[in-house]
Amino acid sequence: MTDVAQPAQAQPEAPLSPTDRSTIRRGRVRARTARAELHEILDAGLICHLGLTTDSGPLVLPTCYGRDGDTLYLHGSTGAASLRSLAGGAPACVTVTHLDGIVYARSVFHHSANYRSAVIQGVAVPVLDDADRRHALRVVTEQLAPGSWDGGARLPTEREMAATLVLALDLGEASVKVRTGPPGDDEEDVAADEHWAGVLPLNQTWGHPEPCPLLPAGTPIPERVSGR
Amino acid sequence: MTDVAQPAQAQPEAPLSPTDRSTIRRGRVRARTARAELHEILDAGLICHLGLTTDSGPLVLPTCYGRDGDTLYLHGSTGAASLRSLAGGAPACVTVTHLDGIVYARSVFHHSANYRSAVIQGVAVPVLDDADRRHALRVVTEQLAPGSWDGGARLPTEREMAATLVLALDLGEASVKVRTGPPGDDEEDVAADEHWAGVLPLNQTWGHPEPCPLLPAGTPIPERVSGR
Repeated sequence: MTDVAQPAQAQPEAPLSPTDRSTIRRGRVRARTARAELHEILDAGLICHLGLTTDSGPLVLPTCYGRDGDTLYLHGSTGAASLRSLAGGAPACVTVTHLDGIVYARSVFHHSANYRSAVIQGVAVPVLDDADRRHALRVVTEQLAPGSWDGGARLPTEREMAATLVLALDLGEASVKVRTGPPGDDEEDVAADEHWAGVLPLNQTWGHPEPCPLLPAGTPIPERVSGR
Repeated sequence: MTDVAQPAQAQPEAPLSPTDRSTIRRGRVRARTARAELHEILDAGLICHLGLTTDSGPLVLPTCYGRDGDTLYLHGSTGAASLRSLAGGAPACVTVTHLDGIVYARSVFHHSANYRSAVIQGVAVPVLDDADRRHALRVVTEQLAPGSWDGGARLPTEREMAATLVLALDLGEASVKVRTGPPGDDEEDVAADEHWAGVLPLNQTWGHPEPCPLLPAGTPIPERVSGR
């Protein structure tokens, strides 16, 4: 993460990264090609960063998503110009990143971060069939709040469905990059032994649920929330 | 976060969001215009998502950054095509997002996330002067690993400096969006009282430092790491 990753060059045999633009060139040692790893990274995430090109340049927006098989679902208001642009065929890039730790090297130059990231490029297609749309929204909801769709909350009305745009992005064109482990210092810096080196791990943890003030007093917190 | 944010419409009096493309239209209630809030969000972050437009479409990459005043610094290898493209004048978008919690609403439709995000659009210019480059790298290093530049690690050699591209992005054109607080359910759903609602906070916490296996046994962990 000390430098910016960059896709290039075809690896036709790889189960992941099958095209020129989705093959990682820089930091090759950290590139992964297993589809299971892509799925794992996506499933462990809560938000993605959605990139698109607008008339005034690139735009990167945080948003929710969900994965089912090799499809990533996005959703949003039918009024959102960014989603409408994607629905019209504008290419998209979806990136999910987990920051796992800060890598303190003996040299500033080799400072880095331990992370897992997935970058998906493609054209997201609108999901139009009502049953498919409900399935997609279930997938997105369950990624964000497991249990909410299946009994935990009121399902969407026809009107709410009409106000929602649902897009499907194929995971065919994806690249995965992972850095783990200690710093990769130069031998001379290790031998000099002048500075501490190591990794400071970073964790995401759930806090205590905060019930809505409008709930009747004593309403129990469901296990799908408290046990997360 | 249930829908995708979208910039538009000028607010000429705002201290932030001064241009058409950086003014938030959707979710207006969550848009913030204080520059201090932009700085706070950037200073609290460890990585950003850098968006650019390539020949094959938009690309979003996680990378490190640092802020000094109203300048955001990026760096990377001189071999990274993405950075070279930006250095050549390609427009950039840098987004920093903090996910603070999951908003469980009584309806699936009002499920959301509590978050703070900053979106900066502009053209990043290469930093060329050697002293300026060192200053920029100090800022980026201190954002990732406070204390590393000032005594905690070996500073860059001439060769390492030559291998590093440094870019500066002005924070003039930025938008900030923040969601806090309980779910915004419809009155009928609140009255029906059929589902739990509230927020499950999400925290980032540091783990125990993991010393590099190549360190001599008994090397103490510096306070800048253990006390973070």
